[in-house]
Amino acid sequence: MAGRVIRNIERADGAVIDGLAALGVATVHEAQGRTGLLASRLRPIYPSARIAGSAVTISAPPGDNWMVHVAIEQLAPGDILVLAPTSPCEDGYFGDLLATSAIARGCRGLVIDAGVRDVRDLTDMGFPVWSKAVFAQGTVKATLGDVNVPIICAGAAITPGDVIVADDDGVCVVPRARAATVLEAGRRREANEDDKREKLASGTLGLDIYDMRGKLSAMGLRYE
Amino acid sequence: MAGRVIRNIERADGAVIDGLAALGVATVHEAQGRTGLLASRLRPIYPSARIAGSAVTISAPPGDNWMVHVAIEQLAPGDILVLAPTSPCEDGYFGDLLATSAIARGCRGLVIDAGVRDVRDLTDMGFPVWSKAVFAQGTVKATLGDVNVPIICAGAAITPGDVIVADDDGVCVVPRARAATVLEAGRRREANEDDKREKLASGTLGLDIYDMRGKLSAMGLRYE
Amino acid sequence: MAGRVIRNIERADGAVIDGLAALGVATVHEAQGRTGLLASRLRPIYPSARIAGSAVTISAPPGDNWMVHVAIEQLAPGDILVLAPTSPCEDGYFGDLLATSAIARGCRGLVIDAGVRDVRDLTDMGFPVWSKAVFAQGTVKATLGDVNVPIICAGAAITPGDVIVADDDGVCVVPRARAATVLEAGRRREANEDDKREKLASGTLGLDIYDMRGKLSAMGLRYE
Amino acid sequence: MAGRVIRNIERADGAVIDGLAALGVATVHEAQGRTGLLASRLRPIYPSARIAGSAVTISAPPGDNWMVHVAIEQLAPGDILVLAPTSPCEDGYFGDLLATSAIARGCRGLVIDAGVRDVRDLTDMGFPVWSKAVFAQGTVKATLGDVNVPIICAGAAITPGDVIVADDDGVCVVPRARAATVLEAGRRREANEDDKREKLASGTLGLDIYDMRGKLSAMGLRYE
Amino acid sequence: MAGRVIRNIERADGAVIDGLAALGVATVHEAQGRTGLLASRLRPIYPSARIAGSAVTISAPPGDNWMVHVAIEQLAPGDILVLAPTSPCEDGYFGDLLATSAIARGCRGLVIDAGVRDVRDLTDMGFPVWSKAVFAQGTVKATLGDVNVPIICAGAAITPGDVIVADDDGVCVVPRARAATVLEAGRRREANEDDKREKLASGTLGLDIYDMRGKLSAMGLRYE
Amino acid sequence: MAGRVIRNIERADGAVIDGLAALGVATVHEAQGRTGLLASRLRPIYPSARIAGSAVTISAPPGDNWMVHVAIEQLAPGDILVLAPTSPCEDGYFGDLLATSAIARGCRGLVIDAGVRDVRDLTDMGFPVWSKAVFAQGTVKATLGDVNVPIICAGAAITPGDVIVADDDGVCVVPRARAATVLEAGRRREANEDDKREKLASGTLGLDIYDMRGKLSAMGLRYE
Repeated sequence: MAGRVIRNIERADGAVIDGLAALGVATVHEAQGRTGLLASRLRPIYPSARIAGSAVTISAPPGDNWMVHVAIEQLAPGDILVLAPTSPCEDGYFGDLLATSAIARGCRGLVIDAGVRDVRDLTDMGFPVWSKAVFAQGTVKATLGDVNVPIICAGAAITPGDVIVADDDGVCVVPRARAATVLEAGRRREANEDDKREKLASGTLGLDIYDMRGKLSAMGLRYE
Repeated sequence: MAGRVIRNIERADGAVIDGLAALGVATVHEAQGRTGLLASRLRPIYPSARIAGSAVTISAPPGDNWMVHVAIEQLAPGDILVLAPTSPCEDGYFGDLLATSAIARGCRGLVIDAGVRDVRDLTDMGFPVWSKAVFAQGTVKATLGDVNVPIICAGAAITPGDVIVADDDGVCVVPRARAATVLEAGRRREANEDDKREKLASGTLGLDIYDMRGKLSAMGLRYE
Repeated sequence: MAGRVIRNIERADGAVIDGLAALGVATVHEAQGRTGLLASRLRPIYPSARIAGSAVTISAPPGDNWMVHVAIEQLAPGDILVLAPTSPCEDGYFGDLLATSAIARGCRGLVIDAGVRDVRDLTDMGFPVWSKAVFAQGTVKATLGDVNVPIICAGAAITPGDVIVADDDGVCVVPRARAATVLEAGRRREANEDDKREKLASGTLGLDIYDMRGKLSAMGLRYE
Repeated sequence: MAGRVIRNIERADGAVIDGLAALGVATVHEAQGRTGLLASRLRPIYPSARIAGSAVTISAPPGDNWMVHVAIEQLAPGDILVLAPTSPCEDGYFGDLLATSAIARGCRGLVIDAGVRDVRDLTDMGFPVWSKAVFAQGTVKATLGDVNVPIICAGAAITPGDVIVADDDGVCVVPRARAATVLEAGRRREANEDDKREKLASGTLGLDIYDMRGKLSAMGLRYE
Repeated sequence: MAGRVIRNIERADGAVIDGLAALGVATVHEAQGRTGLLASRLRPIYPSARIAGSAVTISAPPGDNWMVHVAIEQLAPGDILVLAPTSPCEDGYFGDLLATSAIARGCRGLVIDAGVRDVRDLTDMGFPVWSKAVFAQGTVKATLGDVNVPIICAGAAITPGDVIVADDDGVCVVPRARAATVLEAGRRREANEDDKREKLASGTLGLDIYDMRGKLSAMGLRYE
Repeated sequence: MAGRVIRNIERADGAVIDGLAALGVATVHEAQGRTGLLASRLRPIYPSARIAGSAVTISAPPGDNWMVHVAIEQLAPGDILVLAPTSPCEDGYFGDLLATSAIARGCRGLVIDAGVRDVRDLTDMGFPVWSKAVFAQGTVKATLGDVNVPIICAGAAITPGDVIVADDDGVCVVPRARAATVLEAGRRREANEDDKREKLASGTLGLDIYDMRGKLSAMGLRYE
């Protein structure tokens, strides 16, 4: 039954988290074997934000944002709120008052597979949100949910304390225990890409850089 | 049968309308008991517009924008055009020429549960639109609809002369007769929020401001 | 069977292409008899881009971007890549490395009925994309598709070398052989609109400019 | 504020209601000027049911079916329950126990812009439902809604006591006061169709029955 | 401009058409290199129909079924009507009267990327329809479209006289000129499948029948 | 990286599994605290099937069904195949040949967050499938996925060996370790419902059976 709040969660190292933010969603996703993306329906409310932080998770009934208040008390500086409704919902669980409170706790942003409101205020406050909808629909405070339990958010499994990375490309989750390894892999990938980018910019083709012509020909590609 | 144009509609007081615009969609929606929102599929074509005005309504056949011309003649300064197609449609009923004409009549914007086009021009002109789609698909002028009859637009009932409030959060309708009361309730709500915002910003939790801990505990919330 | 690359495609005249870009999607669509629009699900990754170019087409398996590399070699300056997956897919076929390579070949942009990633980078690079989704999901290079064959992209038939016009209103295709004629029709339409715009701005109604009152009355429109 | 239950509603004449059921949704929709259809997302849980009855309306919070219990007490024999959630929801508000209770009150079926469950049982019981989704997701009983107030259900305005007609084509609402007139118009239409059906079956074309050739030609139709 | 009716179209051989019907959609799709499917949103109104016929195409404005009457005159026995609206629409273009007329001309069914109504009657008449929606919404007869011109229907290019195959799996189009070749390839495929089906039924694995183990291992598959 | 096949998975007790099948999806979902449902987009290809079995999971690339062959070898009698694509896809991964092979291994059905084809054959064979789409689109065998690893399918976390329950209401997963407990809770619930059903059938209201009147009144419900 719902109604659990886990107080103590483990978090990844702060430098690792910040390193993952610098890599961004696409690189992190590739660096962990093309896994961890949340569904593309989650879009940022304003462009150019790029954050990473530790997930404080919320499982909430449809149209009921009571647990958001409970979750805010569990925030540590650098955390990101991640809310999944227990059934599909696009109500506006979160607005400028909750953002004010979350910011006071050091929260870096919100990822929500539902709606958000007061998006102009949130934009002015620089509090980034990735949501399924922008919708002013108000919610009630009548039914319990859970805080800091494992959730499925927009098709991805998220354990409290996992690292959330979010930017204009969407949202990616990195399991806490793998965060350092993924960071390392991502940095290698990025370094590798710098070299390729230079070659590509000079006009060398991917066909040649990646040595694809032989394989394409063997597969049956024919030029006419 | 379709083909009616109601010439004289009652409108709310101009100061009340402007007061509602200042409150914005989320506050107005809450102030009237969490009612009146149009569906979240209506999105602004550019950010940061916030308007309110009296609804001049259009019921139009799919793919036919003839009635928009008829409706523009019925506009008074401060009005907002609100168009609902008689069946789902995303064609571009409205573009820069119609906007030019509407602006000449003092129109403040368009709410349309269908498509709009010339959105770069409309943005440059500062004519805000909330629509279901951006789509250049042209329309015909062959079949009658109605102007200034009650309509259902994006799931909300709208009577001509009702107050439409629209901003980055979406669109809300306030029945004309309730506009002054809703404005008052909204202002009380806003004043009340200022105090809460300050407390939340200083780190006081919503759990304490709203005195939720006892009720949560009584409901069975358990900290682990 | 898949695996064809057509090397030589005919392109429209460069001045005609640039003329079509200047007209924009809505005017071009009207000028060719209200045809040629791609579905409204294709949206630009950033506002205010307006381009036209010759289509280099890609038919690609879901989740496989191998053919993009092949297609880039076929690009001539001024071309636009147009990708249709062989079944619905929203994976991120294209990102900043491919954009770097495409730009080196003189490519003006990408139209894709699937996903794109690295959108912040692409925005910074000024490489416009119209896509169905923004999604970081990586793709493989395992199965052949086709380059420069006729495709259906977002509901529109596109032959290699057709002129693609894309702006904030979406994307339109103009058959190569009709490009000059459409340009001429579009310019006439635009000239005609300037006059109407002036009249409308001065307050003259479309009802009078287009002489609609008699026909509306004959159809049964009644003012009450 | 929510929490209202209207006990006494006016209903249309029983014979008129049954007459509308016999006509079916498409004919009734046409007979009242092509109005009154609920959105096509409402589909029957099993084929071949055709009913009409008086609407007992429910406005319910997302994920909360408390008001269904309240509404069942308000049912008179021949009524149809019509539920609209206050925001989009697909939870299973209704299953076999509620159907058992509704049947005991003489209820003829359910129209719901949300989910339903136990659909095999409901099918076996012969209790027809038109719903947006089939979804077993359970609901709570924590927040008030309203019973027998005007609602918007799937895009149509429904006043308690209006006649609901539902069959394999979907759902249509007829305002109570117009029910007899619509029935009459529907019967005229049906009689008229019998004659046309016979002619069409014998091979006479609609082009000739409706005398369309001249008008098509005048509009510019050209045979090649 | 719209308004063309092509009277004479070439059709495939009747025996070839019937042979393709016997193969069904999935086999035909595979036999022509995995091409030709219409989008999965087209679903049959009742199960178990399986038909093939020559396409008589209709391009119709949204919400306007005038051209259906024009198209029916162009039907030859064994034909299938295929309708694509010029912009997305789900109105009910077709019902029992039009079906009566189409049947009188020997029409085998309807494929429509829009809505259909009177589905219970159509089912009783045994007239199969594959549609995007079931919706009673009536249409007008006010604007011209085209008959027997090439169209894009549900994402597939269809030329008049192409063979349409439709069954519970959906709809597939076979270009007329390739119909005999595809039939032959489909029959070979079917014969080949009979043998495989027998082996699979006896417990032999696809891994062994298709000799996949070596390739899987080479690709890196590892059993744990 | 992908490419793992776990050979040995633990399964729940056969009698427990069959007991859960008898309860059905709605009761099982309630009995485990309203958790475990897969998204409502998964629908049965034919009505009235009700099954339960142990999950053999497949994580497959979009448009690539190679791993289905690998998974079939891992089936034990009474298992259910559960396939989640690594990104959204509606291709037809599975048809009558694979069903023949799965049946030979004792498989009870397929749950797939993608497409299926040959649905008439599957229906005739009595092999039930719950899928997101019916689509004949063929797939390739080119890229590795995983078999019997934890997956997220249609929004639910599934571990190999978990019990899958599926019927006309959709699909529910029960964690293996909780299966016996959930069965017991479900049976208690069912027994409890029998009593309620009888009372409701006799006309007693849920308002009285569940003693709701006082609480509703205290919440502010008012009869008018």
